[in-house]
Amino acid sequence: MKEIKISSSKDYSVYITSGGTYFYSYLENNKIKYIYIVTDENVYGHHKEFINSLKDKTLGVKVLKPGEGSKNINTVIDIYNELSILDINKKTAIVSIGGGVAGDICGFIASTYMRGIGLVHVPTSLMSQCDSSIGGKTGFNFSGIKNLIGTFYQPNFVYIDVNFLKTLSEFEFRNGLAEVIKYGYVCNENLFRYLEQNKKGIKEREIDKLLHIISECIVIKGKIVEKDELDTGERHILNFGHTIGHGVESACNFKIAHGEAVSIGMNFESSIGLKMGLTDYSCHNRLVSLLRYFELPLDINGLDIDINKVIEFLNKDKKKTSGLVKFVLPHKLGNAIITTDVKKSIITEIGKEMSGR
Amino acid sequence: MKEIKISSSKDYSVYITSGGTYFYSYLENNKIKYIYIVTDENVYGHHKEFINSLKDKTLGVKVLKPGEGSKNINTVIDIYNELSILDINKKTAIVSIGGGVAGDICGFIASTYMRGIGLVHVPTSLMSQCDSSIGGKTGFNFSGIKNLIGTFYQPNFVYIDVNFLKTLSEFEFRNGLAEVIKYGYVCNENLFRYLEQNKKGIKEREIDKLLHIISECIVIKGKIVEKDELDTGERHILNFGHTIGHGVESACNFKIAHGEAVSIGMNFESSIGLKMGLTDYSCHNRLVSLLRYFELPLDINGLDIDINKVIEFLNKDKKKTSGLVKFVLPHKLGNAIITTDVKKSIITEIGKEMSGR
Repeated sequence: MKEIKISSSKDYSVYITSGGTYFYSYLENNKIKYIYIVTDENVYGHHKEFINSLKDKTLGVKVLKPGEGSKNINTVIDIYNELSILDINKKTAIVSIGGGVAGDICGFIASTYMRGIGLVHVPTSLMSQCDSSIGGKTGFNFSGIKNLIGTFYQPNFVYIDVNFLKTLSEFEFRNGLAEVIKYGYVCNENLFRYLEQNKKGIKEREIDKLLHIISECIVIKGKIVEKDELDTGERHILNFGHTIGHGVESACNFKIAHGEAVSIGMNFESSIGLKMGLTDYSCHNRLVSLLRYFELPLDINGLDIDINKVIEFLNKDKKKTSGLVKFVLPHKLGNAIITTDVKKSIITEIGKEMSGR
Repeated sequence: MKEIKISSSKDYSVYITSGGTYFYSYLENNKIKYIYIVTDENVYGHHKEFINSLKDKTLGVKVLKPGEGSKNINTVIDIYNELSILDINKKTAIVSIGGGVAGDICGFIASTYMRGIGLVHVPTSLMSQCDSSIGGKTGFNFSGIKNLIGTFYQPNFVYIDVNFLKTLSEFEFRNGLAEVIKYGYVCNENLFRYLEQNKKGIKEREIDKLLHIISECIVIKGKIVEKDELDTGERHILNFGHTIGHGVESACNFKIAHGEAVSIGMNFESSIGLKMGLTDYSCHNRLVSLLRYFELPLDINGLDIDINKVIEFLNKDKKKTSGLVKFVLPHKLGNAIITTDVKKSIITEIGKEMSGR
């Protein structure tokens, strides 16, 4: 059992374990009397036993259809309705058991129900364990725009059991690895080296390797969030791979997984750095090797995605932020700069290469 | 022009004026490029000129049906939809022009759209000028429960023009006075005395008197919110009159105005203090005199409200908070204590007296 403390508008702990039945006692320690669980059909299938073990404290269990499609206003209203007929008070916590979708929805509900009730995350995917369960971003998709509606709201605690990762499909597992690689490549050289040196063990999901990479990601993200909880500056670095990645996701109407899109985005954005003389070849090649080893996609060649649509989306996204497209460009290993100074011609050029046109 | 600074998770200024055209320049000073206005039909009718004067910066104007009935999820979704087709970014502010309903809805939208965009309140009712525009509570009613869904979110600034109060009906004006009296009675002896000594001028809406009482209320509330933004302790004092008041509102399905309900609630809760030996007669009588002078209701006698329903609601409300009904009981003038230690028999006894049964 490892405990990582995160300081932000609300201080909380992330508990990382590889098995055991500590969860119930953490609820007690956090003075949470009752819980309302949100999960999805897949996760419920795998972790029925764990969910049933909490029935003493459980006021209700909401089982969503798996996938991004559930992250909408109707799910939110549905849960509000269920809560309104239950005996919910400030000592109740909404507990997400699952991936980013359950976590984002639960965070939003917990932050808005009675102006804020308890929130606990039990992430079960690699992506949510190493990334989305930390940092307090909540939200749902609206009008076709990802996370258009959301809040910042920190949980009471996060409970990570790396054994949960055993039930993931290969596909889900490597999707999460895309975010882990991101943390290494632009935030922490040592983590990147660890990934290179232990790639076989990681691929085989050896527990000690998983414990290490997840802990590292959480420590890195925790430090960034401590400095920039509301994502107004420094936290933007975590967007590496996501500027293009979001464009790719939107251009194919979210038919591609988030991790795949981020993988393509990382290769694309690192290539921008390369063309601009910011990123050196050996770094870029090490990124590409690692993505390739974990069978993550590098470009949209062969995928049914129109590169023009991706670029169009960048401009749409631009309006939503500060008026200029913001890129995170790798500098040295474990380092990156944030810039709006990327020529359109460079983007178009790489776009053409990556779509094989 | 008076400026009151409020410190909280976001520091902001409340500008109080009795006319002038400063608003536009405050938008500029706060780097707000575009605004989306939410108001209601009544307010729009009275302040069309003011709203039109902002058209350079206005992306849209949403005119709600007046009253609590608009404070629901459908209005929220409707506005989300409108925003999603506009060019909204972090430099856009949602501007409420109106009373508590517009303010609460706008606050919720601003706090959740893109995880938080700009927010400006231009309160036009006495209630919103002296109370609801300060402190960052946002929300809407859901499943018949008042403000069941909401957030805490502070505005960029609040702009109060006391001239706006001239267009209020007698009824609306005295409703706001209920909250002003509350601030005097449980928070500030001097304000209470001022109300007693200047009641005629206040009733006649003399500008200098209005400026004084509104500024005082804002200073009082600002100090309380600075210490307890998230309403976990000290801020509860502002609930004086509201424990019973909310019960009264619910028991008649919100057919009574909020200020009227609070007036009844203040008399009721002060009577509890009296019966428990906490409040002395002279204080209580001064409260009753002032409420009477401003033609605010003192009891539910003659109103179509079942006192048993009011008491039933207290128990329902109890579950929603900490398991016990919390009362704010006046101690000395300008002072009160917060307690859960009120016998049911006292409540029933006063209830009987107040309903004339």
